[in-house]
Amino acid sequence: MNKNILGIDWGTSNRRAYLIDQSGACLAEHEDGQGMLAVGGRDKFGASLAGVLEAMQLPSDVPVIMSGMVGSASGWQEVNYLDASVPLEQLPQHLSAVTDPAWAGRSYIVPGYVYRNGASADVMRGEETQLLGAVALGHRDGWIVLPGTHSKWVLLRDGVIQSFATYMTGELFAMLSKGGTLSAMMDGDTSDAEGFATGLNQAAQNEPLSNSLFRVRAGVVSRSAAPQQAAATVSGLLIGAEFAAAARAAEGQGITVIGSPALAARYDLAARHFGLKCTVLDPHQVYCTAISKFLKA
Amino acid sequence: MNKNILGIDWGTSNRRAYLIDQSGACLAEHEDGQGMLAVGGRDKFGASLAGVLEAMQLPSDVPVIMSGMVGSASGWQEVNYLDASVPLEQLPQHLSAVTDPAWAGRSYIVPGYVYRNGASADVMRGEETQLLGAVALGHRDGWIVLPGTHSKWVLLRDGVIQSFATYMTGELFAMLSKGGTLSAMMDGDTSDAEGFATGLNQAAQNEPLSNSLFRVRAGVVSRSAAPQQAAATVSGLLIGAEFAAAARAAEGQGITVIGSPALAARYDLAARHFGLKCTVLDPHQVYCTAISKFLKA
Repeated sequence: MNKNILGIDWGTSNRRAYLIDQSGACLAEHEDGQGMLAVGGRDKFGASLAGVLEAMQLPSDVPVIMSGMVGSASGWQEVNYLDASVPLEQLPQHLSAVTDPAWAGRSYIVPGYVYRNGASADVMRGEETQLLGAVALGHRDGWIVLPGTHSKWVLLRDGVIQSFATYMTGELFAMLSKGGTLSAMMDGDTSDAEGFATGLNQAAQNEPLSNSLFRVRAGVVSRSAAPQQAAATVSGLLIGAEFAAAARAAEGQGITVIGSPALAARYDLAARHFGLKCTVLDPHQVYCTAISKFLKA
Repeated sequence: MNKNILGIDWGTSNRRAYLIDQSGACLAEHEDGQGMLAVGGRDKFGASLAGVLEAMQLPSDVPVIMSGMVGSASGWQEVNYLDASVPLEQLPQHLSAVTDPAWAGRSYIVPGYVYRNGASADVMRGEETQLLGAVALGHRDGWIVLPGTHSKWVLLRDGVIQSFATYMTGELFAMLSKGGTLSAMMDGDTSDAEGFATGLNQAAQNEPLSNSLFRVRAGVVSRSAAPQQAAATVSGLLIGAEFAAAARAAEGQGITVIGSPALAARYDLAARHFGLKCTVLDPHQVYCTAISKFLKA
């Protein structure tokens, strides 16, 4: 029996594959731009996956565990969301077997989660795998933050999701940088500490983003703010909006951030600003730990 | 002496010109896409203005009053913002004479306003002319709302601006429609009443837009919301954010909206939702009234 497993974080735009052994050690990795959108249709995922095995020179019988948009309605096959009340450690029992005959019996998709609160819903696909890793590493309680294009704030209790919220932080930042009123002044350093703090302070006042974003421009054209700080201020406003929404709930507990060093440093700074302790976990280690749990199951 | 005046609302993307007599009646109008960006440089505005007079077959000595981005740093000549404390009826005494020798003595730019509140600033260029018209029509007190790409909420007291706030409502809606996570589900009818009300209700909860916008998508993919209502819900979230921020301050006073029939109807609906009375003014009439005040001055 194969003692290794291939984990693939198959997102909208990118794909990352890791060969992992039972201890959670990463033996090999591969990354490419063959995200869901690039694959180009449901019937092309099988061949696309074969390309990963070939690129990594893996035997064709290696078990494959995929997470992310590969399980969405526009992915390989749609996998229903689990209700948030299903414990993260039960994820290995809820894998969806790939039905494509060429891959059946050796490849599986991890389901995402839906959190319903009255008429409102929030969803995740991919982050559940990171959360399983965090739980396996002992982070069973409190706030886990997964920053990025769609930042997630997840409240855990004994390894079970109590609630979660998604913020389009990275996506809005990219949109505002690319075009429109603010883009011309957004070529400054996004990590400028003073500009970032300005944004965090404004976010704490809970005014609508559609107003506070415009005031970044107004500050520059009325010469009360430095144009080279605008990008960092926008970043502070967007990240600050996450903290402003969750900080009261997280008071006294602190947060655990799973993110790359650059992003984690930004969130650590914001956490201090909002009076929260911040622990940082390495996303690579967290992911590999999670995938090893699927091998053992 | 020429008894008529040409008013030009010269914005970023479009330009609207109206020939107006002393009574405020509009004798002729012209609209084209020669906004600030299309003119292509400071030294091209003179020839561009000559084109308007030619297209409207006007004598070369007609006085010209321009407002909007034509007076910005990227326009014909930068006109300093007036402080919000300067009464709107004093605008005719603060016109900036065009210095271009070919146009000096017969063409003027209306200054915009800056409102400073602590370290924060907000600005307008163009809306001040509409506000002068509203004041001339007897709306000297209370909340004036100018919906659009950058919606303005202005609080007047006896014809003087007490405060104002800008919301990037139209710009964010356009960005979200054009690309990214939400765009694929935003081809529904933006005036769908139920979808719009859903957005207004969520906006009233004061959660960050970066979160509530994502939940529009989450609702659709988790099958708890109808995809054809998504565009109206996004519109309700963005317009609702304006009301959520200002409604408490406007309680018992109502608002006066200066906007096209379609937009004004949307704001009227939102106003009822938030328990505010709403009066609608025709932007064409308001603008022409304002320009006639410059002729008399």
